[in-house]
Amino acid sequence: MERIAVGFLGCGNIGCGVYRLLESFGGELEKNEGIRFEVRRILVRSLEKTRAIPRALLTDRPEDVLNDPQIALVMEFMGGEEPAASYLVRALQNGKTVITANKMALASHWEEIVRAARDYQSGLYYEASVCGAIPIIRAINDSLQANRITSIMGIINGTTNYILSRMSREGAAYGDVLADAQRLGLAEPDPTADVEGYDAAYKLSILSTLAFHRHVPVEAIYREGMTGVTPLDVQCGREFGLTLKLLAVAKMEGGAVEARVHPTFVPEDHPLASVGEAFNAVYVSGHACGEMMFYGRGAGDMPTASALVSDLIKAAKTKKHPLPAVCDEPCTMAQDWQCVHFVRMRAKDEPGALSQVCGTFARHGVSIASMVQKGERDEGGCVQLVFLTHRASERAVRLALSEMARDLVSKVSVIRVEGR
Amino acid sequence: MERIAVGFLGCGNIGCGVYRLLESFGGELEKNEGIRFEVRRILVRSLEKTRAIPRALLTDRPEDVLNDPQIALVMEFMGGEEPAASYLVRALQNGKTVITANKMALASHWEEIVRAARDYQSGLYYEASVCGAIPIIRAINDSLQANRITSIMGIINGTTNYILSRMSREGAAYGDVLADAQRLGLAEPDPTADVEGYDAAYKLSILSTLAFHRHVPVEAIYREGMTGVTPLDVQCGREFGLTLKLLAVAKMEGGAVEARVHPTFVPEDHPLASVGEAFNAVYVSGHACGEMMFYGRGAGDMPTASALVSDLIKAAKTKKHPLPAVCDEPCTMAQDWQCVHFVRMRAKDEPGALSQVCGTFARHGVSIASMVQKGERDEGGCVQLVFLTHRASERAVRLALSEMARDLVSKVSVIRVEGR
Repeated sequence: MERIAVGFLGCGNIGCGVYRLLESFGGELEKNEGIRFEVRRILVRSLEKTRAIPRALLTDRPEDVLNDPQIALVMEFMGGEEPAASYLVRALQNGKTVITANKMALASHWEEIVRAARDYQSGLYYEASVCGAIPIIRAINDSLQANRITSIMGIINGTTNYILSRMSREGAAYGDVLADAQRLGLAEPDPTADVEGYDAAYKLSILSTLAFHRHVPVEAIYREGMTGVTPLDVQCGREFGLTLKLLAVAKMEGGAVEARVHPTFVPEDHPLASVGEAFNAVYVSGHACGEMMFYGRGAGDMPTASALVSDLIKAAKTKKHPLPAVCDEPCTMAQDWQCVHFVRMRAKDEPGALSQVCGTFARHGVSIASMVQKGERDEGGCVQLVFLTHRASERAVRLALSEMARDLVSKVSVIRVEGR
Repeated sequence: MERIAVGFLGCGNIGCGVYRLLESFGGELEKNEGIRFEVRRILVRSLEKTRAIPRALLTDRPEDVLNDPQIALVMEFMGGEEPAASYLVRALQNGKTVITANKMALASHWEEIVRAARDYQSGLYYEASVCGAIPIIRAINDSLQANRITSIMGIINGTTNYILSRMSREGAAYGDVLADAQRLGLAEPDPTADVEGYDAAYKLSILSTLAFHRHVPVEAIYREGMTGVTPLDVQCGREFGLTLKLLAVAKMEGGAVEARVHPTFVPEDHPLASVGEAFNAVYVSGHACGEMMFYGRGAGDMPTASALVSDLIKAAKTKKHPLPAVCDEPCTMAQDWQCVHFVRMRAKDEPGALSQVCGTFARHGVSIASMVQKGERDEGGCVQLVFLTHRASERAVRLALSEMARDLVSKVSVIRVEGR
């Protein structure tokens, strides 16, 4: 039986979860896998905080983990960009295998971190950085290699999925559900990273880079948050048989990659529509495998620990660590994309108005699949019009809308539709 | 770049799919994985059949594949128990790595095949033997190792899922949909293996063996087909918010394993309920990861080829082939199990009848959660009663039903309910 010394960088919720899992399940791991992991040193910010971990393991000096020659595997769950990214690079340069749950450090410093792993032939594992327990990194790297992956659509942020699930079910407003989620500890006091899609963009950068074998930088991802979503949009979508999700979408078409995070309608019978509460799911299409979905808990101490310890075992058993199958050529990002658009607008209820709106769409090549007028004429003499386009260029829809006269049309929501 | 010679055993639909995928995607595999696979020899039953494969590769002598020292990797997709199982063992004994899509040979000869892999230190890979493209074997073996898996529930037969999805949607009868499925090539001319649950039982044997680290033999799996399912059951279930599936269920409780394949109701908002058409999905619960689901195409040439080629790459890159983490102790099978039961019966519509039925359930400790009377009194003076029990012992429900007087109760359907 092999004994392997492990060092931790960070020991918050997730670090404590990993420690607990290794303690409580170590016997089974020994029996099934023939390896015993021994946590040797844990870097923490404060030595004083009470933790269910022996005091002797803790240190506040990073070099106690990064430079300890006994430590072969370093696990990082400090979160945040720095100093985490620098520590990851230093650990790799010291020949240590790195296992990280930190999507932000990894996505923001991808090239630097991967280069360090390559140059020093050190192992780099990051299953836990995307979607907690869901083995989506393994699926792309180790199970779908024989596929030209054409698209990835993911519900990869649990907080926003919880909020949107409740808004859909209860017809509630965004602010009210957010406040509730914050009370329940499901949203941060500052929810920006989740609700503005930053968290999803980091994860999508990692997923699409692996799927398309080209580095898709975070900055190249179009990002639109969910703070503007209204109960009326949710309800109008439902009347078209659509369910609203914050989706991370990446597609490869004609050599160009489109990658975007935004509120998205999916048909209510699409597998992604039934992903409720704080669950995550990633829907992948490949030219050989067809359509697949991976569903599970995308956050939480134990689900994340499950992924981290599986990386630990994989790293310990691998003689020649794999590098991401990503080529050095830069990624060509698509400048526009095609999809069905849901467009809701407040429009003057007068003869000729609808014809002008439809005419403007038509001039830009945007073909309308269906239209409904919603509710009664308001006090300003306007009605709500809801359009569903056929597949149309994003740019054309934007141009058409910008051309519609201000006095004719106001309060426009545009929500993309995928999965039809 | 490494060049690896591959031999095929069998070349039907799936074999041709693998050949096509290696031909058409070989360039990308070379670039991404650094390996070139060369198909060297293909065992076929008839040399005369027309195939889109060079004639020179074909042979009808198994030893041309099994004894060729140039062939390091042998892929098997002959199907059926024999001669496939013997070939697998011979290939392993010859030191070749074996990659198989054959659930029947593998499940029926598990111990013999695994022993040959262990004794001769040969690689054994079988991702494609369960659920086509879905990487469920990898998930259990390589991603969920840090979990005590407590339950597996799978829609692991596409034919029956197609039939049940249509019965649910259209209210159609089993025989009509089966005939349609046969016309469409979605069901075999002799559908027994699918509709009686044999196919699912083979797959469940493999999945539960890996999940629980004990060999769960096919013969130990309780199996009940779907030929007795009626549109009335489907409809009554729907009124309770339940969707009917042919589920493969395996649970580990108190050291004992229960494994069973039977028609099963799941709540309509359970992720398994939304798995439609011929798709497969496996729902796994683990003590750390929580609930997960893996969804995709469980059959077909290209989805299966996707899994086979991923095994090919994994096998080619692995220096020390893993053995299944299964201990030698025999598996203790549970003699009874607990679940919610849906019970529909035709009962005399007379004073005291319901009280007798309920009394009999109660005497056996079966507690009723809800009951509805369905439709009107028939010409025999009977009505349909539908019960949903609380969690109850299977044996107790059976005993109670067998005790209900024949003249009081007839035509009983019992369908288990999971996932509530």
